[in-house]
Amino acid sequence: MKVSILGCYAATPRSFTNPTSQVLEINNHLFLIDCGEGTQVQLRKNRIKFSRIKHIFISHLHGDHFYGLVGLVSTFRLLNREKELHIYGPKGIKEIITLQLKLANSWTNYPLIFHELTSKEPQLVYEDTKVSVSTIPLKHRIYTNGFLFREKEGDRKLLINEAVKYNIDVSLYKSLKKGKDVVSEDGKLIANHLVTSDPIPPKSYAFCSDTVYDEDIVPLIRNVTALYHESTFLEQELDLAFPTKHATARQAATIAKKAGVKTLILGHYSTRYDNIELFKTEAETVFPKIILADDGKEITVE
Amino acid sequence: MKVSILGCYAATPRSFTNPTSQVLEINNHLFLIDCGEGTQVQLRKNRIKFSRIKHIFISHLHGDHFYGLVGLVSTFRLLNREKELHIYGPKGIKEIITLQLKLANSWTNYPLIFHELTSKEPQLVYEDTKVSVSTIPLKHRIYTNGFLFREKEGDRKLLINEAVKYNIDVSLYKSLKKGKDVVSEDGKLIANHLVTSDPIPPKSYAFCSDTVYDEDIVPLIRNVTALYHESTFLEQELDLAFPTKHATARQAATIAKKAGVKTLILGHYSTRYDNIELFKTEAETVFPKIILADDGKEITVE
Repeated sequence: MKVSILGCYAATPRSFTNPTSQVLEINNHLFLIDCGEGTQVQLRKNRIKFSRIKHIFISHLHGDHFYGLVGLVSTFRLLNREKELHIYGPKGIKEIITLQLKLANSWTNYPLIFHELTSKEPQLVYEDTKVSVSTIPLKHRIYTNGFLFREKEGDRKLLINEAVKYNIDVSLYKSLKKGKDVVSEDGKLIANHLVTSDPIPPKSYAFCSDTVYDEDIVPLIRNVTALYHESTFLEQELDLAFPTKHATARQAATIAKKAGVKTLILGHYSTRYDNIELFKTEAETVFPKIILADDGKEITVE
Repeated sequence: MKVSILGCYAATPRSFTNPTSQVLEINNHLFLIDCGEGTQVQLRKNRIKFSRIKHIFISHLHGDHFYGLVGLVSTFRLLNREKELHIYGPKGIKEIITLQLKLANSWTNYPLIFHELTSKEPQLVYEDTKVSVSTIPLKHRIYTNGFLFREKEGDRKLLINEAVKYNIDVSLYKSLKKGKDVVSEDGKLIANHLVTSDPIPPKSYAFCSDTVYDEDIVPLIRNVTALYHESTFLEQELDLAFPTKHATARQAATIAKKAGVKTLILGHYSTRYDNIELFKTEAETVFPKIILADDGKEITVE
């Protein structure tokens, strides 16, 4: 599981920092999460193949999280994309994109499918055989969702030497991987656990930005492998956090601790801070395993 | 008169090239012309003070000419702008911008005034005591205008030694600058031309992008000081120019020659070309005074 941070700063794009966007690579899927202005250039800089992106998740309709989307949608057309593109985001996103395409008298030459979100309850928005994606309702100034990406549990691992020893026909290996007991060549019932071991534990990633400090999300993100939680401010600006519906580094760490996550990734730093190391220092007083997001950084989650 | 090229490449933004945007400085005004994605970052890189921009002219609603506008409008708000901002562009631009602000539940804290254009005839869209701006209807795939910026003729230059010699009272100098004859202290009528010289010839700038080769614009841009004319293609791609309603370098130079302009600035290069010097070489076979636009370049027009 790898997270490529394309941008992780709040508010306006600058010469050296970019607004929110990241690519999650999980179980061979590539999911684009948020798409601030400049995202398509950041994708190029990070050498991420445009055609591998099939699903884009937009948390909310503040500009620093989606103003790069219409340009990316247009660029896909110029690149002669044919594959479907699915966009998940708040109601209104379809109107914004289609209005601009209509006024440019250009439509996409690939299927563009919007999944508009309105529910304030967590909901499953995407699922296939390998991965599921659910919303994490967040409390911000406008309707906002985080997203929870979960690998599904894979097959059990076949212990090939044991399977041979128990004289099991190769045609039954698939059943073994699925956890079934089988009958050997010599007619004995072989218990599954004798010839397989547990699958690799599935990984999970929770993206929570933007949000005020909100313990209601804790049960939704419990035990995730990695949590990205916004930390727009340090505690010294705590008085700004609540009215703007943002969180501090310490608050993000508190959520991580309460939810028992493995790793906390911090980001969405206010551009008032020159030294983002301060976010790590503050968060570490509460929770040990902190990674600072930064533009262009690739974070491999073990 | 100075043109700062923020971006001058067609189609998609890339790591090292930007879509169309430029800032014209003329007679102490700063006009932003087109606003592709990434324009606000380019403004910062070129150290152009955001607050000096009061008028933005958008040629047409293809993404590479305006996808950066909504972000810039939002950034002005974050910068606590108070001054009016005037946006001139095709009908629809107001809906695009206001829809996005509405869905973000944020409005500007400064007056945002749209001047939507629909006329297919040239029209005066802005005028003050120093400068006028008119549209140049262009032929492209969608409704498109170029813009013609003209300095107004300034005052006549006072020849101070002559004025003293003819014994003219200081209170009459203003009348002299306005071209009037005056009566000297000793009662003689003094012809204006004896004590003044012609004003600095006013400069003019024509921005013509995007457009197919179109001789109809020649009378509108005759004798301008500098013409920016798109040259998306070289002649070797002439077969692409007409169907996509773009021009070649040679065609841009032909328009410049027919219109008798002083300098031709080329830009809006297709990203298929690695070496933009070829545009200059091709255009110089028709017209001598060629300047190649390039991102970040400042062009001072004499």
